[in-house]
Amino acid sequence: MMIADSDALVRSTRSNGTACASRKQRVVIVGGGFGGLYTARHLEKELKRRDDFEIVLINRENYFVFQPMLAEIISGTIGLLDVVSPIRHIVPKTELHVREVEAIDVENHTITTSTGFHPHPHVLDWDHLVLAVGTVTDFRGMRGLPEHAFPFKNLADAIKLRNHIIRALEEAAIERHDADLRRSLLTFVVAGGGFSGVEVAAEVNDFVRHVAKSVHGIEQDEIRVTLIHGKDRILQEVDEQLALFAQRLLARRGVEIRLNARLAAATGNEAILDDGTRLWTKTLVSTVPASVNPLIESLPLPKAKNGRLTVDRSMAVEGATNVWALGDCALVPAADHGFAPPTAQHASRQASVVAANIVASIRGGPKRVFAFEGLGILGALGRHSAIAEILGVKISGFAAWFLWRTIYLMKIPRWARRLKVAVSWMLDLFLAPDLVQLRLDTGVGVTREHFEPDEEVFHQGDVGDRLYIIVRGSVEVWQETAGAASRVAVLGPGEYFGETALLEERMRNATLRCVEPTDVLSLPKQEFSVLTASLPDLRQSFEEKSHERSPRPRPADSFAR
Amino acid sequence: MMIADSDALVRSTRSNGTACASRKQRVVIVGGGFGGLYTARHLEKELKRRDDFEIVLINRENYFVFQPMLAEIISGTIGLLDVVSPIRHIVPKTELHVREVEAIDVENHTITTSTGFHPHPHVLDWDHLVLAVGTVTDFRGMRGLPEHAFPFKNLADAIKLRNHIIRALEEAAIERHDADLRRSLLTFVVAGGGFSGVEVAAEVNDFVRHVAKSVHGIEQDEIRVTLIHGKDRILQEVDEQLALFAQRLLARRGVEIRLNARLAAATGNEAILDDGTRLWTKTLVSTVPASVNPLIESLPLPKAKNGRLTVDRSMAVEGATNVWALGDCALVPAADHGFAPPTAQHASRQASVVAANIVASIRGGPKRVFAFEGLGILGALGRHSAIAEILGVKISGFAAWFLWRTIYLMKIPRWARRLKVAVSWMLDLFLAPDLVQLRLDTGVGVTREHFEPDEEVFHQGDVGDRLYIIVRGSVEVWQETAGAASRVAVLGPGEYFGETALLEERMRNATLRCVEPTDVLSLPKQEFSVLTASLPDLRQSFEEKSHERSPRPRPADSFAR
Repeated sequence: MMIADSDALVRSTRSNGTACASRKQRVVIVGGGFGGLYTARHLEKELKRRDDFEIVLINRENYFVFQPMLAEIISGTIGLLDVVSPIRHIVPKTELHVREVEAIDVENHTITTSTGFHPHPHVLDWDHLVLAVGTVTDFRGMRGLPEHAFPFKNLADAIKLRNHIIRALEEAAIERHDADLRRSLLTFVVAGGGFSGVEVAAEVNDFVRHVAKSVHGIEQDEIRVTLIHGKDRILQEVDEQLALFAQRLLARRGVEIRLNARLAAATGNEAILDDGTRLWTKTLVSTVPASVNPLIESLPLPKAKNGRLTVDRSMAVEGATNVWALGDCALVPAADHGFAPPTAQHASRQASVVAANIVASIRGGPKRVFAFEGLGILGALGRHSAIAEILGVKISGFAAWFLWRTIYLMKIPRWARRLKVAVSWMLDLFLAPDLVQLRLDTGVGVTREHFEPDEEVFHQGDVGDRLYIIVRGSVEVWQETAGAASRVAVLGPGEYFGETALLEERMRNATLRCVEPTDVLSLPKQEFSVLTASLPDLRQSFEEKSHERSPRPRPADSFAR
Repeated sequence: MMIADSDALVRSTRSNGTACASRKQRVVIVGGGFGGLYTARHLEKELKRRDDFEIVLINRENYFVFQPMLAEIISGTIGLLDVVSPIRHIVPKTELHVREVEAIDVENHTITTSTGFHPHPHVLDWDHLVLAVGTVTDFRGMRGLPEHAFPFKNLADAIKLRNHIIRALEEAAIERHDADLRRSLLTFVVAGGGFSGVEVAAEVNDFVRHVAKSVHGIEQDEIRVTLIHGKDRILQEVDEQLALFAQRLLARRGVEIRLNARLAAATGNEAILDDGTRLWTKTLVSTVPASVNPLIESLPLPKAKNGRLTVDRSMAVEGATNVWALGDCALVPAADHGFAPPTAQHASRQASVVAANIVASIRGGPKRVFAFEGLGILGALGRHSAIAEILGVKISGFAAWFLWRTIYLMKIPRWARRLKVAVSWMLDLFLAPDLVQLRLDTGVGVTREHFEPDEEVFHQGDVGDRLYIIVRGSVEVWQETAGAASRVAVLGPGEYFGETALLEERMRNATLRCVEPTDVLSLPKQEFSVLTASLPDLRQSFEEKSHERSPRPRPADSFAR
C-alpha cells in the first residue's frame, strides 16, 4: 500500500504562511563554499535596503571551510577548527539548513533535502535557485581507489588523514618484526601535483619528519614521502620558474617527486602507478580527479563536456528560469576569452554578480555581467615557504610565504576567527606540533576493500577480526599442515569467508589469497557478533557453513581459548 | 586445522633481544589517566639515576585527557584539543602502545593487545604490571540507556555530545510543523548530580542559551535543561552550604533541578524517571553509573564488592606478584580510615607510591605506603562560577572560579599546553562561542535502538531510511487505507521490517508500533544497498519477503519514483 497523497509531504511554508500575492520571494542557495556563502552575504546587504525576499542556504555542514588553509590541519599549524567558520555567524539573516540535497525539480521550483531527526520528507519551494555545489573527488572506476585512497577536499578528510598518519607513525614505532609492514607504514604517497597535492605533500612531509623526532624508534631516513604527477613538472597553473623553485625546495626537504606517472590502482598495501611501479604504502592521498558534484549530473540542464553547468555572463543557467550557477560547478565565460578558472577569488566575485542579478530580477533593473580577470596565484609549500604570482610579479620563498599568510588572514571572514588563526600561527612558531589523534568514529560498519592478484587477505595464524564477502574476483584458500601447504578451495562472488575464526574466537585456520583483482566487503567482528547474537538463524547458517568447511571437532587444547 | 604452535605468535622481544640474565626488567602500565601516566612520569625520573628498566604504557588513545576540564569542550571555551596532551610529549622515554588490551595473564606475566594494521597477535611480557584502567560508564541492564544515553567520560564523548547538541539546535530552528519534535530537540536532560553531572549541565545550559541567540527562530524560553539527581541535594561530595549555593546558581541560570529521582529507562524520544515522569528529549546525558573497567572483571584477582581491586597500602594487588593497581580501579586504604576517593589528586599521589615501590622491588630498598589525605575539592558551575573547599575553607562564586582556573592551569602537564589553554580562555572572554559541528563519523553501521510500548518506529508516509531487525519485544504493523487503519501483522524477535521502502526507494507503506519494550537493530539504507547489491541471494530473499507482505504490483504513478 502506498501513500500517493501529496498531503503526506511536509511542505515548508513561507514566512507569511500562504502563497498570497504579497509574499516574499525565496532565494535558495545550495552549497556553502566561496560561491554560495558569498552570494548569501551579498544578498544580505541588499536586505538592509529593502526586506523583500528571504534567503535559505542548504549545506551539509554548519560551517564554511577556508579551503586554502585546509592542508595546515594535517600538521596542526592552526587549530582543528580555525580553518572553518560557523555559517550562521557569517550570514546571520540567512536560514541555514544543515542537510543533504536529495532532489531538485527545476520545472516546479522545489528542492527536497535529506531527513533530520525524524524521517519526514522535507520539500522547499524556491523562486530563485543558486547552485554552488563545487566539485567532489571522484574515484569511481579507478581500481582500489574508492576503498584505499584518502581524498582531500573537506575538513573531515583533513582530520581523518591527520589521524591516520599519526596512527601509522605510532604503529611503525612498535613494529619491529615485519620489515615490509614497517616500511609501508613509513611511506606516504600523494597523487596529484596541482596546488592541492603540492600543499598536502609539503605538510605531510613537514609533519611526519617533525613528529618522528618525538616518537622513539623511528629514524628520519626511514621516512619516505612521494609526490606523483602526470606531467613533466608540478604546478602547471604557475610559471615554470616558480614551479621549478617549488620542486627543488620540496626535494631538498625530503619529498621525492615522480613526474610523468599517474596512479593506476591501489590496495590496502600499495599504490600502483601506470608505469607498473608499485609503492608499498599504508597512506595514499589522491587530490585528483575532481568531478562535478553528482547532484549536477542528475539535473536536466545543459552542461559542458566536463559536466559543468553552462551559464551566460550574467551567471544564469541556460535553458532554465531563475536558476543561477557559479563557482566550480559552472562553466563561466571569462571577460576576455575562455572560461573563469575554478578558484576562490573567481567564485567570490561571481557571487556578487549572482546576488546583484537576483536582486535585479526581484526589484527590476539592469543585470550585471561577470568580468573579473584574476589578481594572481598563491601556493604554500610548507614550513615558511610559498610561491606567488601577483599582477605579473613572481615571488618565492619566505617573502611569498609571508604574503600568503597576510593575504589569506585578511580574507578569513570575521575578525574573531582571524584573531584565533593569528594566535595559532604565533604559538606555532615556538611550540612543537601537536600529535593528538582525534578519533571519533568507532570504526564499525561495512567496509569495502580491494586486493590485487597474489595479495593475501589474511594469513593462517592471524587474529580473526573480520568476516569477508566477495563482491568481484576470486580467492584461493590455502591450508598449511606440518609444513606442507595445499589449496583446499577457490571462492567466488557472493561467497563469504573468515566466519570460522569469528565464531570460535580463534586464529585464522587458513591463508586466503586473491587470484585476480578482487573486491570484498568486510564486516568487523563486533558487528558480526551483534548480528549473529540477535539473529539465531543467521548464526546457524554461518555455523553450518563453518562446520562444512572445517568438519573436524575443535581440539580441546586449542590455545586460543 | 589450527595453529597451536606458539611460534606463530609474534612476541615482542626485549630491547636486548633475548631473555639473558642481564636483561632489563620491563614495567608495563595499562591506562594513561592520572594514575598510569603519572606512574610513568615518576618512573622516568628514576631512569635518570640508573637506566635499569624499561617502561611500556598501553592506552587506547595517544593522549592524556585532563579530565577536570572535559566539560569545557561542550561550550568550546577551550579549543577541542586543549584539554588533552600527547602522551609522548609528557613521557618521552616510555614506549607507548596505542592499543586495546585483550587479555592479561597474571600467572605467566604476559599481556595481549589488540591488533594494529595487520592482524598479527601481539603479546608482551612484563616483570611489573601496573593497572590503572579507571572506570567506565556502564549502562548495561538499564532499559534503552546503552542505545540512547550519551556517556560523558572521554574526549570522544564530549565532542559527540557537543556535535549532537549543535545538530539538535540546527534542526529545531527549521522544524516548524511538529511541535513535539521541536520541544524534544530543545530539551536537554543530564542524569547524575555529582561533580561530573553538574559541570555538564552547567556547560550545556550556558552553551545552548548562548548559541540560541545566533540561531534565528529559537527563543530562550523554549530551551529546557534538566538535571536529575537521586538524592535530596546535588554534590554530596561537598558541604551542604556549597551544594545549596550551586543549586541556587544553576536554577537562576535556567537549569531545572529534579531531586530524589533517578533515570529508569530511555528511548530515542524520551527519558523515563523512576517516579514515572517522562521527559521528551532528544539529548540525554548520563554520568552515572561508573563501573570498574570490564578488563578488571575478567582478572583472577581479589576484588572488593564494588569490583575494585584490593591493594595493600604499598599499592600491591593482593594475591599476585609484581602487580600494582591504583586510581579508580583500585580500592586503596586511606591514611586515617576508610578508602581513598576516586579523584585525580589521589590518583596522582598514588602514582608516586607505585613508582617508588616498583623501583624498590627492582633495586632493593624499603617500600613506601600511601598516606595522602587530600587537599580539598573544586567544582566548576559554568560561566565565571565555581565552588571550592580547600583545607577546610569554603569559597563560592567568582573567587572560587578564579581559583579553579588557576589551580588547574598549573596542573596541566607541560607549559606549551598550559599556554594554549590560557590563550583560549583569554580569547573566550570576548569571542562568541564557536558552534562548528565537527562530524567525522559517516553515520554508517548497525545501530541498536530501544522503544517503549506504544512508541512508533516509523509512520506511514515517512521516508524509508533504515531496515530494522527485532532483537527483543514485538511490533505491530498498521496500514491506513482511505482513512481507516487496520492492524495487518505482529512481528517478533528475529523478524525484520522496513525492507520494502528501501528496496523500492519510496515512502513507508505502514506504521510500525511497539507492543512491549522492544530492542531493534537498524541498518542504514546505504549499508543495506551495499549488501543487497553485492549479494544477489540476500536481495532476492528480501524481495520475496517484501512481495509476500505487499503483493500488489507497484502502481505506475508512484510519486516517489
